[in-house]
Amino acid sequence: MSEKVERPAYAIAIHGGAGAITRDKMTPEKEAAYRAALDTALTIGEQILKNGGTALDAVEKTIVYLEDCPLFNAGRGAVFTHEGINELDASIMDGATQKAGAVGGVTTVRNPIKLARAVMEKSPHVLLTGRGAEAFAAEQGFEKTDPKWFYTPDRWEALQKILEEEKAQGKTGSLDNLPRSDYKFGTVGCVVLDQQGNLAAGTSTGGMTNKRWNRLGDTPLIGAGTYASNDACAVSCTGHGEYFIRYSVAYDVWARMIYHGSTLAEATDAIIHKKLVEKGGEGGLIAVDKAGNISQPFNSAGMYRGWAKPGLREVAIYR
Amino acid sequence: MSEKVERPAYAIAIHGGAGAITRDKMTPEKEAAYRAALDTALTIGEQILKNGGTALDAVEKTIVYLEDCPLFNAGRGAVFTHEGINELDASIMDGATQKAGAVGGVTTVRNPIKLARAVMEKSPHVLLTGRGAEAFAAEQGFEKTDPKWFYTPDRWEALQKILEEEKAQGKTGSLDNLPRSDYKFGTVGCVVLDQQGNLAAGTSTGGMTNKRWNRLGDTPLIGAGTYASNDACAVSCTGHGEYFIRYSVAYDVWARMIYHGSTLAEATDAIIHKKLVEKGGEGGLIAVDKAGNISQPFNSAGMYRGWAKPGLREVAIYR
Repeated sequence: MSEKVERPAYAIAIHGGAGAITRDKMTPEKEAAYRAALDTALTIGEQILKNGGTALDAVEKTIVYLEDCPLFNAGRGAVFTHEGINELDASIMDGATQKAGAVGGVTTVRNPIKLARAVMEKSPHVLLTGRGAEAFAAEQGFEKTDPKWFYTPDRWEALQKILEEEKAQGKTGSLDNLPRSDYKFGTVGCVVLDQQGNLAAGTSTGGMTNKRWNRLGDTPLIGAGTYASNDACAVSCTGHGEYFIRYSVAYDVWARMIYHGSTLAEATDAIIHKKLVEKGGEGGLIAVDKAGNISQPFNSAGMYRGWAKPGLREVAIYR
Repeated sequence: MSEKVERPAYAIAIHGGAGAITRDKMTPEKEAAYRAALDTALTIGEQILKNGGTALDAVEKTIVYLEDCPLFNAGRGAVFTHEGINELDASIMDGATQKAGAVGGVTTVRNPIKLARAVMEKSPHVLLTGRGAEAFAAEQGFEKTDPKWFYTPDRWEALQKILEEEKAQGKTGSLDNLPRSDYKFGTVGCVVLDQQGNLAAGTSTGGMTNKRWNRLGDTPLIGAGTYASNDACAVSCTGHGEYFIRYSVAYDVWARMIYHGSTLAEATDAIIHKKLVEKGGEGGLIAVDKAGNISQPFNSAGMYRGWAKPGLREVAIYR
């Protein structure tokens, strides 16, 4: 194994979603915009870590930028539900205490990752949903955001296209309108090891285009989309959420390391490239371990991602 | 290890919640009522299994009875939220396919476990919440239940008592009104090994008295409150849900067996009697493995429970 034994001062990885991201669907301008956004996000987290900031702050601030960036399916730029609104999910976990906070299906909170952190730090609960989560946000002094903030023409058109296809096929509202992978990439996430040796992970998403029935995917579920524990690793997932729930993917990485003695690379490869491929679950994850090793495996065509530690820095999109 | 190697024809375990259940708080009449209800529930599952029925049917039908029984905190007899309503959560998982279904925060569905199964079998999703889950229920032909069905005077008074305490302490709506263990026992669950060698698990709850902000606990979360996989075990949890989420308790049992080679007894003892005790998480679980071994550990004062396989049958409440 090539895993390092000496811990770097810090390590960070980010993702902007995995899916059918291929060169032929990309223009040079679009690719440059994604690379620039990933670079900026990475820089935000790196600066906090270089300055001795906490893993939680680095995760939160990096994700806030990605939520506000209209390129990604989280916060502004989120995909639309069947009813034409943006329902946002997010979660965060502190590897030092294993405390966690998450929100599902919020529609008026600009930065769901901030609300997830407030749930972790200011409530006795882990997961709040829908209007209840928004009532909690109001009590915590969060400003109510006009849902128009989340609107982007591309996402709106993606929904219209699916709705038209459904209509043409006479299947509107039908249960066999299974989500297609090219409608759901864009979830964002960040995992971090800080100078104090603390790990943290966070994930934020708008879910899948045309989703119905207040569906929650893996993003707001601790153990499925997000996990962090100082004794092993921090993990943030992206992909076809239902599979990540069924195989508790984020916790599975931790469990393989602790119970089976796998390295981070072995654990993340096993779940993404073996188990999920076998089961038909498309997606990827980013992970960092307590020694500062970074993994970013995905079994889809591409994953927007970036990673850095002292002496190393990359931003990538395709395989 | 004393675990059996020869598989029994079937095995089943049920729980009606763990918590501060002690002899001094119980009357002989109340204890007899609980024992009778557990006995009836167990018989429903046993009959299905004896007749060659499926693990999923046994889990569903047994939990339907426990949901309809006003003694337990699920369906009729659920605890009340801060706003004085009953918000119900449930999940079910099929160990043969690892498909799963779950609902969170439904208020007009008499048997949430049936809806969870419909989510698993009739939707592409795993977890639906709130009004969206109810819209899905309506599309699936579920009758809309008058929320009064769920009302029981004991649960209503439990809420009034807490609200009065909050008022007396001037803390209404305060964040430090942490849930107390004696307000939250009563979650129900069932795990089963059928004659075909298939495992299944299900869990259903009203959550915790005085809960707010559309909080979801571990019950509707696959990997936290419920897990089943034919290669190892089926697990249903009950207790202080936030801890069961943070440590992915149901999946953890599976992971210890598969990655660490633990027996069912070792795996369930390690998580309930060691890790959760260390972390301060109160509760218990029931589990059955593919060889028909049954575990039902809990670290609280009591857990309503029952278990059976050919030649063995017990119903118990205290330690």
